[in-house]
Amino acid sequence: MIHPNILQVESVTYDESEGVLVLLDQTLLPNETRLLRLNAVEPIWEAIHALRVRGAPAIGIAAAYGLCAVLHHHVDDVDGFRAAFAVARERLASSRPTAVNLFWALDRMQRCLDALPEARVPELKRALVNEAHAIKAADLRMNRAIGEHALALLKPGDGLLTHCNAGQLATSKYGTATAPMYLGQERGYNFKVFADETRPLLQGARLTVFELSQAGIDVTLITDSMAATVMKNKWVQAVLVGCDRVAANGDSANKIGTLGVAILARHYGIPFYVCAPTSTIDLACPDGAAIPIELRQPDEIRSMWYARPMAPANVAAYNPAFDVTDHELITAIITENGVARAPYAESLPPLVGTTAA
Amino acid sequence: MIHPNILQVESVTYDESEGVLVLLDQTLLPNETRLLRLNAVEPIWEAIHALRVRGAPAIGIAAAYGLCAVLHHHVDDVDGFRAAFAVARERLASSRPTAVNLFWALDRMQRCLDALPEARVPELKRALVNEAHAIKAADLRMNRAIGEHALALLKPGDGLLTHCNAGQLATSKYGTATAPMYLGQERGYNFKVFADETRPLLQGARLTVFELSQAGIDVTLITDSMAATVMKNKWVQAVLVGCDRVAANGDSANKIGTLGVAILARHYGIPFYVCAPTSTIDLACPDGAAIPIELRQPDEIRSMWYARPMAPANVAAYNPAFDVTDHELITAIITENGVARAPYAESLPPLVGTTAA
Repeated sequence: MIHPNILQVESVTYDESEGVLVLLDQTLLPNETRLLRLNAVEPIWEAIHALRVRGAPAIGIAAAYGLCAVLHHHVDDVDGFRAAFAVARERLASSRPTAVNLFWALDRMQRCLDALPEARVPELKRALVNEAHAIKAADLRMNRAIGEHALALLKPGDGLLTHCNAGQLATSKYGTATAPMYLGQERGYNFKVFADETRPLLQGARLTVFELSQAGIDVTLITDSMAATVMKNKWVQAVLVGCDRVAANGDSANKIGTLGVAILARHYGIPFYVCAPTSTIDLACPDGAAIPIELRQPDEIRSMWYARPMAPANVAAYNPAFDVTDHELITAIITENGVARAPYAESLPPLVGTTAA
Repeated sequence: MIHPNILQVESVTYDESEGVLVLLDQTLLPNETRLLRLNAVEPIWEAIHALRVRGAPAIGIAAAYGLCAVLHHHVDDVDGFRAAFAVARERLASSRPTAVNLFWALDRMQRCLDALPEARVPELKRALVNEAHAIKAADLRMNRAIGEHALALLKPGDGLLTHCNAGQLATSKYGTATAPMYLGQERGYNFKVFADETRPLLQGARLTVFELSQAGIDVTLITDSMAATVMKNKWVQAVLVGCDRVAANGDSANKIGTLGVAILARHYGIPFYVCAPTSTIDLACPDGAAIPIELRQPDEIRSMWYARPMAPANVAAYNPAFDVTDHELITAIITENGVARAPYAESLPPLVGTTAA
């Protein structure tokens, strides 16, 4: 049985009868649950660019459905339809230059179109919608598989700690690091989840705590600086985090703060699990030193979110968006195809090689 | 030579000609540098209670000068003067029930009064002002001594990381953990300081960064979650923190997040120093487990400081104000009387025993 509340908040859906992309505006959470209904290129571009939809898988799904929505009312001939597709695709590709899943999803929609050279407009529309549905369905299956593999490593009643939002809001459903939490909730595991607020952008406070509490999961918000104390209190039996890129040796880039949580977990003997769709495993990247780390604006620390600045305006602030957790600190990397353990250089390639479309 | 900027921001001073307690309102920092001029019991009580002056040493000094200010215009007979003193003392003692230095300073002022049974009102006023000056001067000497002992452990050009505000704003001058930074600044050490913002109340962002940058010290603000990364980058050669209470075995209670910083420092082989006036060493307290930890309101995490709530209003939040850093993680405890190293049960008592008034 799926807990009914798990379904209430979907970050990306498609209204097939109206031909409308429906996005939960994540910039307004947790204060307002507003659904955006979009069917023109520019508003969809803006929604991705402004992080109204965020999380690599969710962005890919939004782009795929976005193309369907833009083309839904198209009554032109086939050539005009294909031209309109190309224009929309190119524009949406510029919305978030660094999100790999965005290009992957747009490419997949293009291949779908290319595979039907003789089709007419209604058939093409149908095929694109089906392809977008397939992208979302594959993401859901992948997350669920990650959740099953992770759940097998956990015990009912466990305390779990997570950092940032690798949750349902970042994906089709279930999330990656949150997938075992939702599956555990379906099966009465009664996990006690601790969510780091995740400064500076507060994805933990705004998003993770929001979606887990909506699902009825026992979740407690802490500041990032309290993770050591909840571990010392013996309240945490496992740490689960998502990731943005995994290098061939297992070094894993994720939201800034993840590295520190891994070191704390090692200190207290708590397993630290990275939940990684195989699409995030980059075997061409030898180690974490080769992963570029985005530096963001100091004002995210000095004044953003706050009613008034809480630091002197011109003081230096160092604001890396990500850090790299050294593979030695990672107990296991959990993919949809199974669980990799050290040495990762040997355990990761077979899992990546068997990825299904 | 004392860097001129170090003197610009004093948290507590006394205007002797007017008989007025002058406080820098720390709740308005860093957006506004407003000096409060107070000479009545209730406004002084409110200023301490509402954290306009904070930091145990600064509170003690404020209470001592506060008594002087309240009694400055007193023209009553000696008995009336002593009665007014008793009323003011009792009221101020209730402003922050947990701040040990508050009672210590009020007691010291009482003993000063009691030591002059034959004195007349002008003499008593003079003696009390001198005693308050002595309290402040002793604090300054103590901080400076801590700074000298700490500076001897550091090298020019070192990167230093601190958590919360154990700074000038919390004391008469120099602070405790910041004392070696100011002394180093006077002597051209060119330290590179990293200041944790220190969620949830942001003392690092609002106060530490403010006072260090005012003094011309090279300081960079980071979120608490970035401490691991700056250590991994080899930017930190020593961690310096203050403390609220040190147990007999060396376990040290300080602002929440300190424990995590100590674990990170241990992981990266970086020395972790606790700067502790001997007045904070509690030899009657056997270990950290015996130190009570104040739990504060969840809204400090969920909504305080922010323009809008950034977490669901009713979600659980765990908000301990302090944590205890295990003595095994502490490289040394630096007091005004010298540096204690493990085993602390043996090294701390001689330092406490030699404390000067």
